[in-house]
Amino acid sequence: MRMYDIIKKKRDGQELSTEEIYYVVENYTKGNIPDYQMAALLMAIYFNKMNERETLDLTKAMINSGEKVDISYIDGIKVDKHSTGGVGDTITLILGPMIAATGVPFVKMSGRGLGHTGGTLDKLESIDNFKVNLSREEFTRIVNQTNIVICSQTSNIAPADKKMYSLRDVTATVDNISLIASSIMSKKLAIGSDAILLDVKVGKGAFMKDLDSAVELSNEMVRIGTNYGRETVAVLTNMDEPLGNAIGNSLEVKEAIDVLKGNGPKDLYDLSIELGSILLLMAKKVKNRNEGKEVLEEVIRTNKAYEKLIQLVRYQGGNVEQIKNPDLLPKAKYIIEVKSSKEGYIKSIDAEKIGLCALKLGAGRETMDYKIDLSAGIVLNKKINDKINKDEILAYIHTNNLNKVTEVEEMIKDIIEISDIKGEDKKLIYGIVTKEGVTLY
Amino acid sequence: MRMYDIIKKKRDGQELSTEEIYYVVENYTKGNIPDYQMAALLMAIYFNKMNERETLDLTKAMINSGEKVDISYIDGIKVDKHSTGGVGDTITLILGPMIAATGVPFVKMSGRGLGHTGGTLDKLESIDNFKVNLSREEFTRIVNQTNIVICSQTSNIAPADKKMYSLRDVTATVDNISLIASSIMSKKLAIGSDAILLDVKVGKGAFMKDLDSAVELSNEMVRIGTNYGRETVAVLTNMDEPLGNAIGNSLEVKEAIDVLKGNGPKDLYDLSIELGSILLLMAKKVKNRNEGKEVLEEVIRTNKAYEKLIQLVRYQGGNVEQIKNPDLLPKAKYIIEVKSSKEGYIKSIDAEKIGLCALKLGAGRETMDYKIDLSAGIVLNKKINDKINKDEILAYIHTNNLNKVTEVEEMIKDIIEISDIKGEDKKLIYGIVTKEGVTLY
Repeated sequence: MRMYDIIKKKRDGQELSTEEIYYVVENYTKGNIPDYQMAALLMAIYFNKMNERETLDLTKAMINSGEKVDISYIDGIKVDKHSTGGVGDTITLILGPMIAATGVPFVKMSGRGLGHTGGTLDKLESIDNFKVNLSREEFTRIVNQTNIVICSQTSNIAPADKKMYSLRDVTATVDNISLIASSIMSKKLAIGSDAILLDVKVGKGAFMKDLDSAVELSNEMVRIGTNYGRETVAVLTNMDEPLGNAIGNSLEVKEAIDVLKGNGPKDLYDLSIELGSILLLMAKKVKNRNEGKEVLEEVIRTNKAYEKLIQLVRYQGGNVEQIKNPDLLPKAKYIIEVKSSKEGYIKSIDAEKIGLCALKLGAGRETMDYKIDLSAGIVLNKKINDKINKDEILAYIHTNNLNKVTEVEEMIKDIIEISDIKGEDKKLIYGIVTKEGVTLY
Repeated sequence: MRMYDIIKKKRDGQELSTEEIYYVVENYTKGNIPDYQMAALLMAIYFNKMNERETLDLTKAMINSGEKVDISYIDGIKVDKHSTGGVGDTITLILGPMIAATGVPFVKMSGRGLGHTGGTLDKLESIDNFKVNLSREEFTRIVNQTNIVICSQTSNIAPADKKMYSLRDVTATVDNISLIASSIMSKKLAIGSDAILLDVKVGKGAFMKDLDSAVELSNEMVRIGTNYGRETVAVLTNMDEPLGNAIGNSLEVKEAIDVLKGNGPKDLYDLSIELGSILLLMAKKVKNRNEGKEVLEEVIRTNKAYEKLIQLVRYQGGNVEQIKNPDLLPKAKYIIEVKSSKEGYIKSIDAEKIGLCALKLGAGRETMDYKIDLSAGIVLNKKINDKINKDEILAYIHTNNLNKVTEVEEMIKDIIEISDIKGEDKKLIYGIVTKEGVTLY
């Protein structure tokens, strides 16, 4: 088998065989195939696409390139939830304790990436001594005793994907549904959860800017998961404006605590209940989604979900006092009010642009060695369709560095658009994709 | 400017600016742009093509990446001829002396490449002590005294093309008209001839297998040359069967001498006269092609062209005795007759496959460090539509190595197809492409 022939085959619009796909992934990971040939193949795939069989084979080959995490020894139907990345996305920290509080094991292994704010692991590290790197023994003991674990994944999960993604990132070959779907799914499927819920964000702050491409990606991922033998469901959720009010690491932990206490922003609460009800159905804990919602509302009302968060933090070595009294979490030196220069209704809050403001304040990382400022970020005081008066507060900037404030303040004023008339209510969930098909709301 | 953005732009079907194309070529040549990004861009160009302006800019940028050879100090209109590569193509060794004998300067700089037989430089090295590497002073002195020079080009002609071609060769991105045309033309235009005649081969033994793609390539090359300010004409010539009878280095030199003496195969003679008449017209030596043909027939009849070859060899240090008595040229130890197993008419002689036989005998190089056997090769005894009797000789194998003989003999018998009926006469020239358009015969 020669890489040249494989490139030419795909370039000419032909289907690659299972053997060819395994050959490419295995030899590229080992360094036997040079980056330039891989780049040519990826661009040919960008143009000529991959079919369902090829995409599944690519996913399998990437899974096989590294370690598979077997968690079958943990009792019950293990569920996992993955978000395609949004702004102010604190869902995991809310959903995990809620699900675990109902008795269903919630096992979440995360990687670290670049982004406007840190990922779930960075957010959890706002809590003093919280341990994200667990040995296999710690992992097993914790999940058996508490039903919940949120930790870092081994660095050897799908190394082929890691290497390919780095190359795609610099050769403009990221934007292909098969490549995106196989990249996400190889990392999820390498961890042996029984059911996977994908939260596919749609909108200005998301990777998928429009519903059509989000549906296409969801279909592809659900097909891969299903063909691999795992129950997989994707939910299409709105990411035009940030989720909740907080964008920043410790700020989002505080907000998650608020939601678990029954306070907190409505959109975060509603979405957690919606996604959670699907997870409980997948875990066969309930017979339908309405029953699932009732169970989840119950664990919030009775404080069981909040107590599960306390337990999670305690078992993973974190300082529970900071959960009980969130004022003890990392706090920025300065909190600056951003005021509106006119009155009206909030028309839009571009999530991606707000994310860039948070990044500028130090809340995220542009390069892997950047040290995140856990206390920095933005808290919105208004959301889309809220009434705003002149000189009323639009948002708060949390920062330890006054140099960036003027710039970020101007940016926020530009980003939050105000209109004379109130717009229509936006949907929080656009639809759901299962192996049976797409249902749009 | 960022390479990533340039790749994405071409991937998305947009036109690249002049600045972007120069940026890519300059920085790739310098090693500032890695192979993997260049490979991705080349594959994007393969799919989304380049327009006329982009192709010209790419050619100019590749010319500018290296040395330009100024020959304006040589008197007269300097003409150059380039063949896209065929089998048994001895035209340069015939055409050069013919043109120079009419008083028009013929300046030919060649590179060395891989191929079924050696290139023009290798063929000339069949002559003892023939010097292909000339200093600038030698070059100028010789061309001023003799009107003809055939030598190797400096290694610094269009280095960008050299580097890009090596990459295209291993990433399946060779087959794009803009990339092929700019690659050929950058090397031609870097040498300052006033007029360029392109001999574009069409058929089984050529890079372009069909007339449509040969016309497309010719149009592109003529456009580039014309836009660069050089008179450029392309002639579409038949390469279904080898040109002439000889395939091999010293064998082709002998055949060229035969033609210049007024003997030799008719197709080689006819094509030399046809191409030469166009060159004389481009050099403004004659008013029309018929006059050009008469002038050329005259220099053959009066032996002036043959004497010009003697002069060329003498001035470049070669042993002229080998030209006067071609039996002194390198000779293979064994000459083996290949006989026909049936009678009929020659239906086809696949030029590419015959070329592979010559390569097997050692007449060409598969890798750049291979040492060519100058005496090895094949001499055809029959051409398409010739009558052949059972046991009559089809061809002669010239070799120093008897190990390959049986295999090559069987190959030749397979390649030379024999039919009961005589086929139609084939055209030697399919047409001509000038800046005014395409004329098919």
